[in-house]
Amino acid sequence: MHTLWDDRFARRTDSIGSSAIRELLKLTSLPDVISFAGGLPAPEVFPIERFKEAAEVVLTEMGDLALQYGTTEGYQPLREMIASNAGKYGIQISADNVLITTGSQQALDLLGKIFINRGDRILVESPTYLGALQAWNAYGVKYITIPFDDDGMRTDLLEARLRRGIKFIYVLPNFQNPTGVTLSRERRVQLVELANAYGVPIVEDDPYGQLRYEGEHIPPVVVLDDEIRSKEVPIYSGNVIYTSTFSKILAPGLRLAWVIAPSEVIKKLVQAKQGADLNTSTLNQFLAYEVANGPWMDTHIQTIRETYKERRDVMLQALETYMPEGVQWTHPQGGLFLWATLPENISTTEIFPAAVEKKVAFVPGTSFFPLGGGENTMRLNFSCMRPELIMEGIKRLAEVIKQYL
Amino acid sequence: MHTLWDDRFARRTDSIGSSAIRELLKLTSLPDVISFAGGLPAPEVFPIERFKEAAEVVLTEMGDLALQYGTTEGYQPLREMIASNAGKYGIQISADNVLITTGSQQALDLLGKIFINRGDRILVESPTYLGALQAWNAYGVKYITIPFDDDGMRTDLLEARLRRGIKFIYVLPNFQNPTGVTLSRERRVQLVELANAYGVPIVEDDPYGQLRYEGEHIPPVVVLDDEIRSKEVPIYSGNVIYTSTFSKILAPGLRLAWVIAPSEVIKKLVQAKQGADLNTSTLNQFLAYEVANGPWMDTHIQTIRETYKERRDVMLQALETYMPEGVQWTHPQGGLFLWATLPENISTTEIFPAAVEKKVAFVPGTSFFPLGGGENTMRLNFSCMRPELIMEGIKRLAEVIKQYL
Repeated sequence: MHTLWDDRFARRTDSIGSSAIRELLKLTSLPDVISFAGGLPAPEVFPIERFKEAAEVVLTEMGDLALQYGTTEGYQPLREMIASNAGKYGIQISADNVLITTGSQQALDLLGKIFINRGDRILVESPTYLGALQAWNAYGVKYITIPFDDDGMRTDLLEARLRRGIKFIYVLPNFQNPTGVTLSRERRVQLVELANAYGVPIVEDDPYGQLRYEGEHIPPVVVLDDEIRSKEVPIYSGNVIYTSTFSKILAPGLRLAWVIAPSEVIKKLVQAKQGADLNTSTLNQFLAYEVANGPWMDTHIQTIRETYKERRDVMLQALETYMPEGVQWTHPQGGLFLWATLPENISTTEIFPAAVEKKVAFVPGTSFFPLGGGENTMRLNFSCMRPELIMEGIKRLAEVIKQYL
Repeated sequence: MHTLWDDRFARRTDSIGSSAIRELLKLTSLPDVISFAGGLPAPEVFPIERFKEAAEVVLTEMGDLALQYGTTEGYQPLREMIASNAGKYGIQISADNVLITTGSQQALDLLGKIFINRGDRILVESPTYLGALQAWNAYGVKYITIPFDDDGMRTDLLEARLRRGIKFIYVLPNFQNPTGVTLSRERRVQLVELANAYGVPIVEDDPYGQLRYEGEHIPPVVVLDDEIRSKEVPIYSGNVIYTSTFSKILAPGLRLAWVIAPSEVIKKLVQAKQGADLNTSTLNQFLAYEVANGPWMDTHIQTIRETYKERRDVMLQALETYMPEGVQWTHPQGGLFLWATLPENISTTEIFPAAVEKKVAFVPGTSFFPLGGGENTMRLNFSCMRPELIMEGIKRLAEVIKQYL
């Protein structure tokens, strides 16, 4: 039904999020559906008791501040804690380089707002995180894509693209959403060197960096970028804007994430954030600080790793056991997702209704390709379902796929 | 210092929030400064004990849901509660007409995102809420202003402006920020009729509607608009988008507000919100519902009214007692602010440093005028300071002003 409102919406709303995938995914919350579609952390690992204690402490000792407006930059002790943790990972920054955001989705939106002029080209992996596309579509962006393989973004194809004029490079180096693939150290170095050579900044999105289940830690891109700089400048002044989140290591219901960037970028982000939501929930920042500050956090992250590693292993085993020949999948060393590729003649969007009928769900891969493609791919989340349901769900999914072979 | 980042920022950042006023206001948080500058609720009225009980209940009974991602639209029981409360105020809507936002600042940002094409004209009161200007500047808006008097927006001047082509009208009808002035019932009706006649939607921002300390309740613009429509259409389909917030009646630290709008507008807002922060903190929505649902809320709002009425009365009395001749001020019937006008030759920006030196602060009025003006005006907040400090602060302010007469 066409209403008078339809003529009033801004042009940009034509490119803000198609709702097709949303409508599709609503089906996945039907009862009894084993859903590998979401990107949800397992509620079993939420530290509920610790949050209860934190709420008691925060409200008793500083309730008047926790319930009040806060500064746009974020709660200072939390910013300092994040800066200090970044130091452990090899990047020397101060709290001035940290902005607290309302989930890392807001970080992406604000980065779009301060960087993207209509028509600007952004380089993204293909496939890439859907939420980034949703955030930046509103700013009239053009995507230049770069393919991936088992070592992540094909940096051998990067230079040709940088020559075309790129506003920034968006990369998820660790256990990428949606593919689960990790960018190798060699490629990270190459990425940093080329980005610096062409004067193109990098946005590094690292929600899962601490959730590695095997293999060796690879330094974040922001650290490798920092290493190639002169250490004569004592303040952080790199070419990389780094974002991470409490959603996967504490609780997404807090909507708490952060950006690490040179202070002049933080200042612009702060101005943009003031117009976007004034400040991130003070209460939640106080709670997160109370919960995450101290040695408990490392133990907690270890628990999450063990839980998710088991689920990943079960999913890999289930795929091995049930999937027919011709189906391939990635072997993520961490994170929440793996990526399955079916024979080329099978469209995962077309088999989706049959899967939901069999009470199993996934995200069809096409959603993650900004310029199309990936019709025979799907994203499977392994963090949210208990092991026995993962086995059963993959079994059902394999049965559906076999019908289409 | 010019850095390479300066050349990378989008053009729109030139118009996002000048930081002059922010820098100025940082001075107001110095110790011993009696600040009438903020827009803060009084922490004395935060229901801290009730939040503690709510946190215990929410985390114990549904911690796994409260800490998880939620739907972009918002927590369904909270949406239903808001729809039901709207019914009490005379507007019949369902939860489908309600979107939960991360503070009403986010509502303003999302409205800008879905409605404003670069160059669009928005009609605003002059002066108007600074946060709305900050939100919409990012979308390349042009402001058309309309003056106010003691009965609010001068609707007799409205038609000439609507003829120029207006994307929407922004109005704060109750105890306006910054002036404290209330739009009369007659003018609300005129506003609604003209907006409908010219097919221009209205954005009604009503953060303080429930904080009336004297005089009779005047129906919100959205209700008056609804009254002139045929009741044959059972679903809400008005010309007004209404927004309000928990910030002034519960706690701003939650960052919780809502938009009421026709469902096709809600759908667009949901798409925009998905790209902006996915969803508003689930935990805070659960807490707000637990705290605000039921008869306690009315009693609580009554307590806030009594507290703020006393403070308003003290400020009015202090102004009467201490201010020299030639200084005028509004008499707000509710809300958080009043508006003072000094003799025309005095610039409130110029006297600001002297005021801070005397340990008293306000917001210079010019910030609230999108097209300039108001050099001799200031906004005074009366909600946040205890009565004895209000007396002392106004006394100091009067002394400063006398030096410039």
